[in-house]
Amino acid sequence: MTDVLNQTLQTIFAENSAFYAERGFERRVGYGRKPALVVIDMANGWTRPGSPFSCGGMDTVIPANQALIAAFRAKGLPVVFTTTAYDVTAGEDTDMGLWARKVPLEAMKTGSWEAAIDDELAPRGGEFVILKKRASAFHGTNLSSMLKAMGVDTVVLTGVTASACVRHSTEDAIAEGFRPIVVREAVGDRIAGAIAWNLFDIDAKFGDVEPLDAALAYVARLG
Amino acid sequence: MTDVLNQTLQTIFAENSAFYAERGFERRVGYGRKPALVVIDMANGWTRPGSPFSCGGMDTVIPANQALIAAFRAKGLPVVFTTTAYDVTAGEDTDMGLWARKVPLEAMKTGSWEAAIDDELAPRGGEFVILKKRASAFHGTNLSSMLKAMGVDTVVLTGVTASACVRHSTEDAIAEGFRPIVVREAVGDRIAGAIAWNLFDIDAKFGDVEPLDAALAYVARLG
Amino acid sequence: MTDVLNQTLQTIFAENSAFYAERGFERRVGYGRKPALVVIDMANGWTRPGSPFSCGGMDTVIPANQALIAAFRAKGLPVVFTTTAYDVTAGEDTDMGLWARKVPLEAMKTGSWEAAIDDELAPRGGEFVILKKRASAFHGTNLSSMLKAMGVDTVVLTGVTASACVRHSTEDAIAEGFRPIVVREAVGDRIAGAIAWNLFDIDAKFGDVEPLDAALAYVARLG
Amino acid sequence: MTDVLNQTLQTIFAENSAFYAERGFERRVGYGRKPALVVIDMANGWTRPGSPFSCGGMDTVIPANQALIAAFRAKGLPVVFTTTAYDVTAGEDTDMGLWARKVPLEAMKTGSWEAAIDDELAPRGGEFVILKKRASAFHGTNLSSMLKAMGVDTVVLTGVTASACVRHSTEDAIAEGFRPIVVREAVGDRIAGAIAWNLFDIDAKFGDVEPLDAALAYVARLG
Repeated sequence: MTDVLNQTLQTIFAENSAFYAERGFERRVGYGRKPALVVIDMANGWTRPGSPFSCGGMDTVIPANQALIAAFRAKGLPVVFTTTAYDVTAGEDTDMGLWARKVPLEAMKTGSWEAAIDDELAPRGGEFVILKKRASAFHGTNLSSMLKAMGVDTVVLTGVTASACVRHSTEDAIAEGFRPIVVREAVGDRIAGAIAWNLFDIDAKFGDVEPLDAALAYVARLG
Repeated sequence: MTDVLNQTLQTIFAENSAFYAERGFERRVGYGRKPALVVIDMANGWTRPGSPFSCGGMDTVIPANQALIAAFRAKGLPVVFTTTAYDVTAGEDTDMGLWARKVPLEAMKTGSWEAAIDDELAPRGGEFVILKKRASAFHGTNLSSMLKAMGVDTVVLTGVTASACVRHSTEDAIAEGFRPIVVREAVGDRIAGAIAWNLFDIDAKFGDVEPLDAALAYVARLG
Repeated sequence: MTDVLNQTLQTIFAENSAFYAERGFERRVGYGRKPALVVIDMANGWTRPGSPFSCGGMDTVIPANQALIAAFRAKGLPVVFTTTAYDVTAGEDTDMGLWARKVPLEAMKTGSWEAAIDDELAPRGGEFVILKKRASAFHGTNLSSMLKAMGVDTVVLTGVTASACVRHSTEDAIAEGFRPIVVREAVGDRIAGAIAWNLFDIDAKFGDVEPLDAALAYVARLG
Repeated sequence: MTDVLNQTLQTIFAENSAFYAERGFERRVGYGRKPALVVIDMANGWTRPGSPFSCGGMDTVIPANQALIAAFRAKGLPVVFTTTAYDVTAGEDTDMGLWARKVPLEAMKTGSWEAAIDDELAPRGGEFVILKKRASAFHGTNLSSMLKAMGVDTVVLTGVTASACVRHSTEDAIAEGFRPIVVREAVGDRIAGAIAWNLFDIDAKFGDVEPLDAALAYVARLG
């Protein structure tokens, strides 16, 4: 089925892109002067088997994230990790708001192995780990104002999942006034077609979807 | 192509839903006690031909919105319309932020015919029209705090487009603590597959996608 | 000096209140149906001597907070504590944004004794502790959307300081659509006149400043 | 009374500043590289007699604002005006949320003379006028993300009133990651002591309160 799906999607994306080009969508937001890397939810509950949130494709997604993290570190540029987990549930009340009514957040507890960033991508001292409670890395967090205070104008987004946290974060990134760059090889999901479709929508309207090589070359060029 | 696409999507959605069911996604957020109707961007630039933003399917989308608006009015429940347009451009600076670098916002000017709500859905006195500058009806607007002050707990979302403003608004609605209900027949877009895919993602993770009949029956039941 | 100051302030507040009454300010927002208690920054760095942030008057402020916490617990109503501390500094970059350029935030480190809630007010399981990075308990946190999801319509605010975190939180509370009630005896500060002046401004424009007895009687009345 | 008040306040501010200096408050956030001017609520309802919101001191506040606006225009820097007014009231529901329960917002209607920016400060084409619904110029508006998209790092704040809209906007400005500069001569209010006290608190904790000359000299220095 996946082959048929991918073939169908490629055909339809080509048609849709032709239509968008005529209408003036799919423009390039472009790279800015000071990027931050925002690695979305590359915690064990997503990167490793055995959790309701476990994703596929980590054999390529993790190395792509490692390459980007190394590039940002080499230039002394900000690296931010997010994870998603609850601290409190009290009857129906929880700090996750209503989101636990849609997705199995009861599997993600603050302080658990599932909520910890994958060892292969371990944050270093001076790097930021944001515990978020919603899909977007910006919603209900200090991410936007922290990046603003640092003079960051570009947000390079990676991680999981394309159909939820990466997408909502990208939509919020451009809404907040940052140039979103989503790195194709560094993004994952868990259902067929989700990466392809969501990156297509993102590239048309919210941020530039770029290959890993281009993102690495951009960081390498920075002073 | 559309038939092949739809057939392929239906097959893949069935597979994905089976997977999600096993994992605990696609839960029901459910209807609450006090809903507001939020009609996204049903302005002429989207509902009528001749604009870069023109959408298809208005023969069904407009009547579905009319039915919902009538139902909310009959119960004295809040109705909110949004439109998206710029007020100012000064060189590279605009009140649309960076979004004009991705989509043709130069076609939508505040006060223009394009930016006005379609006459077939004309707002009445006492209804709210929000001029937004971003995809989400919540981002950079007073929508969330206004609804909160009214005691609203449920947001029924309709309008265009599924792949941008409706989706981002729905993601923000649940993030803000409202129960999002997206009415299938009342949502439009302009490219093949966009409605189907985005409603699938929304229903899995952000809000309940409901048929028009169910949404109308819900409003009819309210005191 | 304090006597002269207080006398002068009382005189001027009486004149200002008469003026406001004529103009239509100093209205009552009133108590709602479901309150949450939000205890601002009653952590050791504020409640105990020896920190740049140490406040006075804890002999009355702590018991007033204890009484309110007990009342909310007795009714099973939500209790939220905040503290303010940094996680990361990397050169000039910090998760506190620019705020460390105005106030001595370097004294408040996440995980330190200073940042921990005072033992006399220790949070219990099922209560919420928000680590904030700004003055307002709402800014860059999930507080508003969490309370919305719980159906809370009233926020009872206490803690320190009147001239910064309590005031900004109260301004944001009404902006977000909650009824703010600030409990006079439960609020502290560290400089002369700051409590009196800020509670006057708050009561005129942002929330109702109420005596402890009235707030306790309100909670006692709830079902 | 005003003389006694001012004398008392000056004495107490001197004492409080000495205390703050020892504790590490009242630091300088400093001027950044690209400022925007944000003129708060200099609309007729505040600047002219006859409204519940009418302020005093306009003989000095208006010229100070004119000087700043001219300076920003001369350098092609962004100028933003705000006004506050309601669009809709429907029974108890209004787009002003709960704020009308504290202050006489029924006097400020969108499109009225009261809500229009004072002719002596008339906005030009290419300048931004934000219709806000809350005290803060940032809350529920696109101001922060618009300024971020423009690369602005410093917000020069003026207008009315010191005890509400200017103060809340300044608190939000630093929370959002901008350097707030509040220009003493360009800020007004309507009650005795309100300007002095609020500028003292602001300067201690949220932004730099600067004389007009210094702010003009800063803008003159910019390339």
